[in-house]
Amino acid sequence: MRLNEAQCRVRFAEARVARLATVAEDGSPRLVPITFALVGEPGAADVIFTAVDHKPKATTALARLQRIEREPRVSLLVDDYTGDWTNLWWVRVDAFAEVLTAGTEWETGIVFLQRRYEQYRRNPPSQAVIRMVVGQWSGWAASDGATT
Amino acid sequence: MRLNEAQCRVRFAEARVARLATVAEDGSPRLVPITFALVGEPGAADVIFTAVDHKPKATTALARLQRIEREPRVSLLVDDYTGDWTNLWWVRVDAFAEVLTAGTEWETGIVFLQRRYEQYRRNPPSQAVIRMVVGQWSGWAASDGATT
Repeated sequence: MRLNEAQCRVRFAEARVARLATVAEDGSPRLVPITFALVGEPGAADVIFTAVDHKPKATTALARLQRIEREPRVSLLVDDYTGDWTNLWWVRVDAFAEVLTAGTEWETGIVFLQRRYEQYRRNPPSQAVIRMVVGQWSGWAASDGATT
Repeated sequence: MRLNEAQCRVRFAEARVARLATVAEDGSPRLVPITFALVGEPGAADVIFTAVDHKPKATTALARLQRIEREPRVSLLVDDYTGDWTNLWWVRVDAFAEVLTAGTEWETGIVFLQRRYEQYRRNPPSQAVIRMVVGQWSGWAASDGATT
């Protein structure tokens, strides 16, 4: 069954990890797992924040930011695999990304990420934040499930 | 720490689900979770098979196949999220995909998928198989972990 927008939002918001797909300059797709915070305001588009890691993978992270600045269209996926396939579901977000390195929106992202992950409270992200404005929700579940 | 090719292969092969990124005709990325089988032969490139679902999401699945026929470069990701971030890891595969609907390679894919998933033994996939030849393994782990 298709999930409606409200169902997609609830399932996505509860996940601890999502996968972010970007497109490289040569047109090939790239994938990385991300932590994230979903921020919804009534009457405004949903926004998803993720922070670039502190030290490791510096060149990888930098390349990701450059890809986003060149091609802001990204896709995010949350799914739940279980051996019982009647409980499978996934939610996909197509979004427009921008890279922030300072300012109130950058701070907002940090605050919401810190609310969700205690690791970020102990060790606040200090590098770039990727802000993704949700363009479209889509999702599917094999059954009604327990979440909604 | 970067994972070497052998470490990537082991971690990927043990996962039950991967995420497949393709690129749409308009250049935007698409994401979907997949079941898969990794098949390695000495001296040959690793191959990953996935099957298109039986009934549901017919148009979605068809669009995926069309995207692959237009742009065979795909990316797959396996990751393991835990609340303890010292155990995080991910493995990415950049691969070249082709769509099979019959023949010995199609049959090989079905056989290996059936070995891994009892659902496929009970209810064999009868539609298209996507065969992906691994071009590059890359992976990262926060620590050594237990797997390797």
